[in-house]
Amino acid sequence: MKLVSFSTSRGPSFGIVRDNAVFDLGQRLGGRYADLKALIAADAFAQAARAIEGAQPDYLLSDVNLLPVIPNPEQIFCVGLNYAEHVKETNRETTEQPVIFMRLSASQVAHGQPMLRPPESQQFDYEGEIAVIIGRGGRRIAEADAWNHIAGYACYNDGSVRDWQRHTTQWGPGKNFYRTGGFGPWMVTSDEIEADALMTLVTRLNGQEVQRATTQMLIHGIAKQIAYLSTFTPLSAGDVIVTGTPGGVGAKRNPPLFMKAGDVVEVEVDRIGVLRNPVADEA
Amino acid sequence: MKLVSFSTSRGPSFGIVRDNAVFDLGQRLGGRYADLKALIAADAFAQAARAIEGAQPDYLLSDVNLLPVIPNPEQIFCVGLNYAEHVKETNRETTEQPVIFMRLSASQVAHGQPMLRPPESQQFDYEGEIAVIIGRGGRRIAEADAWNHIAGYACYNDGSVRDWQRHTTQWGPGKNFYRTGGFGPWMVTSDEIEADALMTLVTRLNGQEVQRATTQMLIHGIAKQIAYLSTFTPLSAGDVIVTGTPGGVGAKRNPPLFMKAGDVVEVEVDRIGVLRNPVADEA
Repeated sequence: MKLVSFSTSRGPSFGIVRDNAVFDLGQRLGGRYADLKALIAADAFAQAARAIEGAQPDYLLSDVNLLPVIPNPEQIFCVGLNYAEHVKETNRETTEQPVIFMRLSASQVAHGQPMLRPPESQQFDYEGEIAVIIGRGGRRIAEADAWNHIAGYACYNDGSVRDWQRHTTQWGPGKNFYRTGGFGPWMVTSDEIEADALMTLVTRLNGQEVQRATTQMLIHGIAKQIAYLSTFTPLSAGDVIVTGTPGGVGAKRNPPLFMKAGDVVEVEVDRIGVLRNPVADEA
Repeated sequence: MKLVSFSTSRGPSFGIVRDNAVFDLGQRLGGRYADLKALIAADAFAQAARAIEGAQPDYLLSDVNLLPVIPNPEQIFCVGLNYAEHVKETNRETTEQPVIFMRLSASQVAHGQPMLRPPESQQFDYEGEIAVIIGRGGRRIAEADAWNHIAGYACYNDGSVRDWQRHTTQWGPGKNFYRTGGFGPWMVTSDEIEADALMTLVTRLNGQEVQRATTQMLIHGIAKQIAYLSTFTPLSAGDVIVTGTPGGVGAKRNPPLFMKAGDVVEVEVDRIGVLRNPVADEA
């Protein structure tokens, strides 16, 4: 099942995508769930599937405004330096524990919305990643049980303002400019993607491939990430884990390859789909 | 005016503290504001003050369960390495821009509640700080205008699990263990604390003074912090900025002085009050 958050003239809602059409679950479930996060928290995917059995779709996908898959996560964790080639290109060392930083909701944009380069920087970089969306919450989740806590997967572009990322040792400012991170187009529920699935991640800038990796190349795998994060904080439904970017980022190319207004950046994960964002200068 | 968030058998609410008594604004304002964050967002302090004119208090302060001043901030920013003595004791360099990391709501506890040492660590450390609570939101706020965006001030104990803070270059995990950060006891509204006020911050562990500094010693002052943060992200009502800790943290003492079950830690700011937390082992 592919789940999206979206808005129309009737306001924000969420739904199921099939064949380029959208079934409006906000409506069809009678307003029982405020948003996709609430649907996930209620473990109500089966109910959602029943609600659209035999139904006609409510909208064409092209007629709704997509929102970030989860527009309002409680927590967004990102894993840094989690592919060997990227560790090498940044002259860093592999660490025994995953490198964790955070993004804020305001830094996210949906599929199709422009990722914004702020006027403060010329160094706006892409980072294609696979995002995990937490389903059942928990604390100190064992690695072996981690897969049971995943609601689904999406594509993520952890857009990074490199000079602001390097102002100090802590990367947060460069990772949290307003509307710099793409999250979409939808979430594929975990019943369709088996535990520890092999997924291939590709990033393209203006059609040119710039990053490629598979989940087998992750230094700290998804189960370990969930175990580590949930050791210090309770994870809850709708929390997002952005699992790391492969080698090939723009800042480490020679010459550097930064994003500018008019560019189009894509993050494709074979088992999920393609997240596509134009790049624009922030007005 | 001193504002608190609290709960009673009737549920969560918020109110005004005077002379060890609480006026319940959730009730007295007829449920118009869901919480203290909503009151701040509505710029309704004058309305709140009118609502208790001539009234008798609703509770003794000792009869309510205080909550963290803002239990549910959208964003909690912390400033690292912001007093010269602390920069020196950690063998770091002063940076041109403030060092920013983030805390999550789940890491907060109220005045009087235990700060929890997790079983994963023996290195649970205090960090006394002054917290700023944002009132009027904004983006790219000028330093000169920053004081007009502050709703009030509180005491904060940025409790830190040092070994987890040092797992990698990014400090987030050690700064976000569940219920490790004290935030209280209340917020003193900014009409009572003039712009760029001199405030003195003292931390005591079991009655012994371990940190002391004044706001004049901040490397990056409060107005600059607001300007810097709002450059990359919109600030909104109820956002919290934890402005930095002075020298004297436990990890850098010889021998190190970490917190353990049964300890009592206090953060006092002369213009605000005393935040007091017992320390307990997480069950």
